[in-house]
Amino acid sequence: MESPETIRRHLEQTRALVDAELERVLPPAEEYPPSIHKAMRYSVFAGGKRLRPTLCLEAGRLFAGEEKILLRVGSALELIHTYSLIHDDLPALDNDDLRRGKPTSHVVFGEAAAILAGDALLTLAFEAIAGAGNGASGRTLRVIHELAHAIGTIRGMVGGQVVDLETTDSTGDAARLEYIHSAKTGAFMRAALRSGTLLTAASQDDLARITAYGEKIGLAFQIADDLLDVVGTEAELGKTIGKDQQQHKATYPALHGIEASKRMAAQLADEACAALAPYGERAGILQGIARYIVGRRQ
Amino acid sequence: MESPETIRRHLEQTRALVDAELERVLPPAEEYPPSIHKAMRYSVFAGGKRLRPTLCLEAGRLFAGEEKILLRVGSALELIHTYSLIHDDLPALDNDDLRRGKPTSHVVFGEAAAILAGDALLTLAFEAIAGAGNGASGRTLRVIHELAHAIGTIRGMVGGQVVDLETTDSTGDAARLEYIHSAKTGAFMRAALRSGTLLTAASQDDLARITAYGEKIGLAFQIADDLLDVVGTEAELGKTIGKDQQQHKATYPALHGIEASKRMAAQLADEACAALAPYGERAGILQGIARYIVGRRQ
Repeated sequence: MESPETIRRHLEQTRALVDAELERVLPPAEEYPPSIHKAMRYSVFAGGKRLRPTLCLEAGRLFAGEEKILLRVGSALELIHTYSLIHDDLPALDNDDLRRGKPTSHVVFGEAAAILAGDALLTLAFEAIAGAGNGASGRTLRVIHELAHAIGTIRGMVGGQVVDLETTDSTGDAARLEYIHSAKTGAFMRAALRSGTLLTAASQDDLARITAYGEKIGLAFQIADDLLDVVGTEAELGKTIGKDQQQHKATYPALHGIEASKRMAAQLADEACAALAPYGERAGILQGIARYIVGRRQ
Repeated sequence: MESPETIRRHLEQTRALVDAELERVLPPAEEYPPSIHKAMRYSVFAGGKRLRPTLCLEAGRLFAGEEKILLRVGSALELIHTYSLIHDDLPALDNDDLRRGKPTSHVVFGEAAAILAGDALLTLAFEAIAGAGNGASGRTLRVIHELAHAIGTIRGMVGGQVVDLETTDSTGDAARLEYIHSAKTGAFMRAALRSGTLLTAASQDDLARITAYGEKIGLAFQIADDLLDVVGTEAELGKTIGKDQQQHKATYPALHGIEASKRMAAQLADEACAALAPYGERAGILQGIARYIVGRRQ
């Protein structure tokens, strides 16, 4: 497994690649009508680790995928991620004023523009993937199908957000909490990994291993996120903290305690790494990312 | 050309086919989490002429397309259309309480659910098309690309809505009005027709004729819509009327007068029919639809 320092440097490099691709995929700010393109770019370039594009890229690289199509699909994943953040932050939903250390879209551009910018980013993501044109259209079509399902209502991102909004009592049962996290965050991270894999000649066994890895890190990521909301600082996170508790949200620390939650996250990272053991050192980056997710401070 | 009565009956029949396909594509109301699936179904089945699916189907039939894939893509068009209506009606945008004679989504389910139901319908549309699996994945991918572009920000649906929201003075110039209508309504209707065509073995010339027809009826449809807002009744339309004028919206009647607007719409229908003249009687239905659009009372 790669060292944390190597992983951090690697994530930096990938972020630069993804950001350059996002520059190509997004319409210029001055393109008519400029207000919407400014709003789209504001949120996409407001920071962010580009974790989902990185997962797509690294899974694809593990199976010798074509870098160009992986980067295109990876950038589309970031567009989708940004759409979900903009809409989640709206006054009618989580009503958040701060994201990645900056005022949220609706604070800067107004509610109408924020709703439309989210819609436009989601739409642009599918346009970008469909227009990637790598020749293997069957693979691309399958990726679109998988992604759309993962961000939909049935155990997908929107479904998770719906149940999250309807859950206001943190004493709620563990099964419900697991549904929320698995649907709201896990399904999309897993789909990011599977997308990268599906764009290559990987076997069914390869896909199963990547999927297992994705399940584990998806949940580990969410537990780490819940923990950061309790033990992190606003300066580190760039977003309002303590909101989960304030809103009586179901979280892992609320349900299992801080120490047990930390142990669960570490255990999941171990399992994620074990799933990729058959690839030996070639899986070093993905294994390092699993550790990074659990140890991250933002 | 088919008679108005024949066209009306034909539209009825197609609507039944599209509604049956929408039943198959949409998750059941009781599927978890039920609240979102109820909201999605409420708006999709709140009425509507299924005009865009019909255009897709009829264009595809003209070039001997496969009925099954045409119906699937047609139903996805209706999901996209419904998403756009739900989001347009939101308090932050057009703030409409009534649509197709029924309370709008946010009135019934609340703003958060309405935003998410729109998001979910847009997402499901792409999932449905990508999962149609007709073997010709290159064609399907091109359809996704075209559609996503047509509902995006550059001369597409979201772009049109943005400019519409930013235009509050009906004395505004004609070029701006044409941009709004062409982008907000025209691009998607044209894409519906082109999608049906692209799913067949139609030639470039065929595609050009269908595109010309689509340009004309898209604009005719919008002029008819503007006229209905002035001369129609709320009972006929099932939506709040007189809002354009009240909100000082740019419209054709406001800019050119009622009589001139009627003449423009009739002229456009003529031109749309002429574009399909090379197909003789086979284009009778599409030509009848052009007349129907101009003469409709709702």
